[in-house]
Amino acid sequence: MPTITRRVLLNDVDAAGVVFYARIMAIAHECYEEAMAGSGLGLDALIRAGRIGLPLVHADADFSHPLRHGDQVACSVCCETIGTKSFTIRVDLTVLGAEPRAAATVRQIHACVDMDRLQSMPLPADLRAKLTALAPVA
Amino acid sequence: MPTITRRVLLNDVDAAGVVFYARIMAIAHECYEEAMAGSGLGLDALIRAGRIGLPLVHADADFSHPLRHGDQVACSVCCETIGTKSFTIRVDLTVLGAEPRAAATVRQIHACVDMDRLQSMPLPADLRAKLTALAPVA
Amino acid sequence: MPTITRRVLLNDVDAAGVVFYARIMAIAHECYEEAMAGSGLGLDALIRAGRIGLPLVHADADFSHPLRHGDQVACSVCCETIGTKSFTIRVDLTVLGAEPRAAATVRQIHACVDMDRLQSMPLPADLRAKLTALAPVA
Amino acid sequence: MPTITRRVLLNDVDAAGVVFYARIMAIAHECYEEAMAGSGLGLDALIRAGRIGLPLVHADADFSHPLRHGDQVACSVCCETIGTKSFTIRVDLTVLGAEPRAAATVRQIHACVDMDRLQSMPLPADLRAKLTALAPVA
Repeated sequence: MPTITRRVLLNDVDAAGVVFYARIMAIAHECYEEAMAGSGLGLDALIRAGRIGLPLVHADADFSHPLRHGDQVACSVCCETIGTKSFTIRVDLTVLGAEPRAAATVRQIHACVDMDRLQSMPLPADLRAKLTALAPVA
Repeated sequence: MPTITRRVLLNDVDAAGVVFYARIMAIAHECYEEAMAGSGLGLDALIRAGRIGLPLVHADADFSHPLRHGDQVACSVCCETIGTKSFTIRVDLTVLGAEPRAAATVRQIHACVDMDRLQSMPLPADLRAKLTALAPVA
Repeated sequence: MPTITRRVLLNDVDAAGVVFYARIMAIAHECYEEAMAGSGLGLDALIRAGRIGLPLVHADADFSHPLRHGDQVACSVCCETIGTKSFTIRVDLTVLGAEPRAAATVRQIHACVDMDRLQSMPLPADLRAKLTALAPVA
Repeated sequence: MPTITRRVLLNDVDAAGVVFYARIMAIAHECYEEAMAGSGLGLDALIRAGRIGLPLVHADADFSHPLRHGDQVACSVCCETIGTKSFTIRVDLTVLGAEPRAAATVRQIHACVDMDRLQSMPLPADLRAKLTALAPVA
């Protein structure tokens, strides 16, 4: 499972002194995009090709520990489930340090959409293969 | 239920030509904050007072229709459930037009936290009263 | 000159407890977009038509007073100068209250670009007319 | 001069298909923060200490080439000038590729502020030394 480590920056934090929840979800998506690119599936190329879309149909997140300015955060990305026409990405965020703390788990359910017909379609074989490579370690 | 109507702006939209999912969740929170202020509960005053925090412990969203640049979006805010130590905000986003389209539903579960002891606490009576005023219309 | 008043929200503020400078510039652009729409020039329609682009070639800002969570901010938008192939938008942000405080001035220089040839072009007459309506009050 | 290379991600891009100008300025600040941390000056520690603030008093940017989804962008950070009570950070963004293209130059003028007296103060010697290490290569 690819893990991306990043620092919490000044403008990640909100007026309550912690990373705003929707910013945590944006960070999760950034890590998903980096993990996909690392698997040879650039979202930019996919969008430019214009045949397949992978819109989110659902997202959820559980927050157990705040992220603060300067924290080093490890973001582990996996493809938790692969269905016929959709897949679920899970990103686990952990604050690093002497005692690492699980901070948040974000899930994104993506549908596979035929952009010509604007209707759902089965995941193409090459996309399925790349997602399989992101399966969680047993 | 307070409803806030806003236009989708240039920088709300991402490279796929629709509003990025975490931006939809941020918009939901902005509407929650406006609705709370309209009920006399300013999050800024709450944070400055420093006694009570209302961090999110969970968030989820279902997306059924994309939001596009220039869309007028009605955001209805309600407090769906009020527990002893937590409450759930629901924001329904609808694209306005000749045929209004339900676009997304966002849910935020907020815990009530004693900021001195950093542990959960029962919702104070005045906060409970203001949340009750945001209850969904039957 | 159109003036848009908005509240500083939780996620407008950064770890230093004030609105992050690039967020101030984003707010200025949001107000420019609203002012243009109010003049009958929707940026969304302009982009969809695909013939003319109005990219920024320069931006600058002076910051004289911080914006804090809960502040009510008046944002006055004007078109300060209209050239042959470019125009300058100025947005003045003022924190409202018993003693209003000038907080920031943002300037955006937009070029007019022929999107087919990808080169600068003179401002079309109808765009020029709408920008003239945004001229500063003498 | 530290150079940070980053990919342009889905949510960096706006409805016009390029990175929104204020997002470019935010990216510049993110690179400044990373460069400062690399020089041993964490903005998070500075803010927590609460004695010195480094607010922006001015920012400007010139944009010469758009940033698009998937672009690899090199961001070079330097401290262009060091005054008695202020300093200027310059970030040059270049789109990498067979023919690298200069895309934007962002300048941030930071004042040094005594947070107790809320007035400008001379740059402390250790901060000055760290900024000197970020001076542009002749």
